[in-house]
Amino acid sequence: MIRRDGILLTDLYQLTMLQTYHDCGMTSTAVFEFFVRKLPPNRNFLIAAGLEQVLEYLESVFITPEELDWLARCGRFRKDFVDSLADFRFTGDVDAVAEGTVFFADEPILRVTAPIMQAQLVETRIINLLQLQTLVASKAARCVLAAPGKLIVDFGLRRSHGAEAGLLAARASYIAGFQGTSAVVAGALWDIPLYGTMAHSFIQAHESEAGAFEDFARSHPTNCVMLIDTYDTEAGARHIVQLADKLRRDGIEVPAVRIDSGDLADHARKVRAILDSGGCGRIRVFASGNLDEYRLRELLAVGAPIDGFGVGTRMNTSADHPYLDCAYKLQEYAGQPRRKRSEGKATWPGRKQVFRQSANGIYHRDMLTTTDEEPGGEALIVPVMREGRRLAPSPPLKKVRDDTARQLDRLPAALRSLDPAPAYPVIVSDKLRQAAAAVDLRTRSA
Amino acid sequence: MIRRDGILLTDLYQLTMLQTYHDCGMTSTAVFEFFVRKLPPNRNFLIAAGLEQVLEYLESVFITPEELDWLARCGRFRKDFVDSLADFRFTGDVDAVAEGTVFFADEPILRVTAPIMQAQLVETRIINLLQLQTLVASKAARCVLAAPGKLIVDFGLRRSHGAEAGLLAARASYIAGFQGTSAVVAGALWDIPLYGTMAHSFIQAHESEAGAFEDFARSHPTNCVMLIDTYDTEAGARHIVQLADKLRRDGIEVPAVRIDSGDLADHARKVRAILDSGGCGRIRVFASGNLDEYRLRELLAVGAPIDGFGVGTRMNTSADHPYLDCAYKLQEYAGQPRRKRSEGKATWPGRKQVFRQSANGIYHRDMLTTTDEEPGGEALIVPVMREGRRLAPSPPLKKVRDDTARQLDRLPAALRSLDPAPAYPVIVSDKLRQAAAAVDLRTRSA
Repeated sequence: MIRRDGILLTDLYQLTMLQTYHDCGMTSTAVFEFFVRKLPPNRNFLIAAGLEQVLEYLESVFITPEELDWLARCGRFRKDFVDSLADFRFTGDVDAVAEGTVFFADEPILRVTAPIMQAQLVETRIINLLQLQTLVASKAARCVLAAPGKLIVDFGLRRSHGAEAGLLAARASYIAGFQGTSAVVAGALWDIPLYGTMAHSFIQAHESEAGAFEDFARSHPTNCVMLIDTYDTEAGARHIVQLADKLRRDGIEVPAVRIDSGDLADHARKVRAILDSGGCGRIRVFASGNLDEYRLRELLAVGAPIDGFGVGTRMNTSADHPYLDCAYKLQEYAGQPRRKRSEGKATWPGRKQVFRQSANGIYHRDMLTTTDEEPGGEALIVPVMREGRRLAPSPPLKKVRDDTARQLDRLPAALRSLDPAPAYPVIVSDKLRQAAAAVDLRTRSA
Repeated sequence: MIRRDGILLTDLYQLTMLQTYHDCGMTSTAVFEFFVRKLPPNRNFLIAAGLEQVLEYLESVFITPEELDWLARCGRFRKDFVDSLADFRFTGDVDAVAEGTVFFADEPILRVTAPIMQAQLVETRIINLLQLQTLVASKAARCVLAAPGKLIVDFGLRRSHGAEAGLLAARASYIAGFQGTSAVVAGALWDIPLYGTMAHSFIQAHESEAGAFEDFARSHPTNCVMLIDTYDTEAGARHIVQLADKLRRDGIEVPAVRIDSGDLADHARKVRAILDSGGCGRIRVFASGNLDEYRLRELLAVGAPIDGFGVGTRMNTSADHPYLDCAYKLQEYAGQPRRKRSEGKATWPGRKQVFRQSANGIYHRDMLTTTDEEPGGEALIVPVMREGRRLAPSPPLKKVRDDTARQLDRLPAALRSLDPAPAYPVIVSDKLRQAAAAVDLRTRSA
């Protein structure tokens, strides 16, 4: 079987390079690190996420007979090389920051140490998995910071980029502080709380809106959030008031209404007034539709009486910047530090560590160092896999989420703002600068 | 087994609505249509793509015992409803425009006609699949139009949003006119031509750049495209010239070099000069790095001597607008046309057809009509599935790609430009306007 998310989900050049490594007997240990070169314009920090899926991938990566056969037949590779892939497994080491860790430009969040063929072949999928969840968690965290104390739920599955993007965006946004998601499979796989109401089609399929509300309430007596904007939002709210007494007599409380179109602040105020004057003060107002951190901030700034938000598309596609300038770069081969010097893409060589130093409980500065320095502070990069096996089971997602919230609390206030802040200080150690100079001297003379 | 891309890859509200349909005995036929409400600011047209994956999904959708069990245990659904899903299959009809069809705002590209529970439950995945490929094909077509006659290859897998996004972006960009992709699995599954060279890590892992080039050439004597910007682009080009004679004596021709950083136009000119004066006039120059349609246009406008381009991240995340304002809306239930009137989101009711009218071989205007009108022109929406079965095998991807190219040729010149053009005329028929008014009258009085 040729799997859509198997070992062939890689760039062709990984395999062409592997054939040459094979031909030349290049089997030494390589060290690659994943980092982001530059933060997007409207991000003051990033949140690391996706390590769990990377480790799952590395633990289980293999090649099927059909995939081997395809490689042998595709006309690009020699048989002796293809045969050498038959028992491909990842047997290397991984060091990484915990999921949910705040990080900044140039700071590695994952290090792979393995025979070069292994470390090279997994590059594409590692970037593919780490970028997506880091991108989404970082955007989602901004939504959480924009609406403190509010219920925020991921509604983005339908406009995410394919199945995996939808599923992993639900996970990443939950880590960042969303309370849940509409994506059922994320609830089934990871016990992420699920939220959902009804669609306009449900109202339209009924002869009357009031009839649709009543059918839904009787079918879901303990959880009937009502969508009220299919035809006329305020008329919808009045239908709810008219129905509420009747339902209450049967023991059914409508918990909330949802508004999904128009001027959300204006509608929310009118709906709130209709509900309150109709004796429905306990029914909450939930809003959705083209929301992101900026819209959340605006709605709260004008005092819109909205209790919760469904945030979808713009969050889980990270719509203002849907990618990270990230890379997985060779830092060492056969015991020697390596460095790329391409313009605008130069890297710090060798194995690195990040130390986070705090003052009064607030993050003060980071030190980017070699792995044999101890400048003080918390060392963020820790061993997670040795010889292809995880060192410990993954922490529960709920714990990752709690740890993330604590980290957001410790960010300097300027970084927590939606507006661009001066860059958080990341100090490159003298020893690392000297190492870079030494590598340059060696490779320039080569 | 709970599948990551199975029936639970849906929004919770689909299932809550289904329980109510079940409770109320609402089993009549529903008609849903998928369309884009509004084109993104920098798109003069869209290219429909993703139908193949939608049909695959509808033909094979079912629920596993473990998924049923999870639904029964999750505390939200009654047993009689969950039991009713056990033999869930899609038995409805699909009418759609062919993949690769140019389309505009408000024009349906897919219609589902099925019992309402079926048509509703598949909504999330249908949008998820159609949006992604339509988004990517539409962006990729702009790249193709910006660089006519040039080799353009998808390099975006690593920064696409997950596995499925990477795979399907390779497919969508190929439909739009890209010549191939770096994503190996897309070659293995669909025979899309594969392209790939080497990474900077390959050069860095060697003691010298020249040594890396020679190793690669001997390992890939018929296809050794060389990446020359790891340390110093022009020095890299000189290494190629020095090596070319030696390789030629062994029957190895270097087909191309790749530049991936810095000022691509400037480097390309210098590299071209070094190659030409070194007797390597037949070696082509390939460029990559942060490219999109605008950068392609700039590079060609300044006459950069570049023969081919690797276009990744910005194309396959559709970075300037990574989502479509698309919807899958109920248009008819139990034989009666339906319409949503939410502000800014009103829809045209009933089953619709799009007729495309040409003048001198160039698209002139579209007519959006009911399905019982014949205003002349080509009817774009055709039957593709009946009672859950496809009416014909899918056309080969190569044919879809050729048809797409012919459609791009027939677009008015202003729409083919990268700059925003006046909207292509889509005329709503009088009969459709009357139908909308009739629905409004009926639902207002309800």
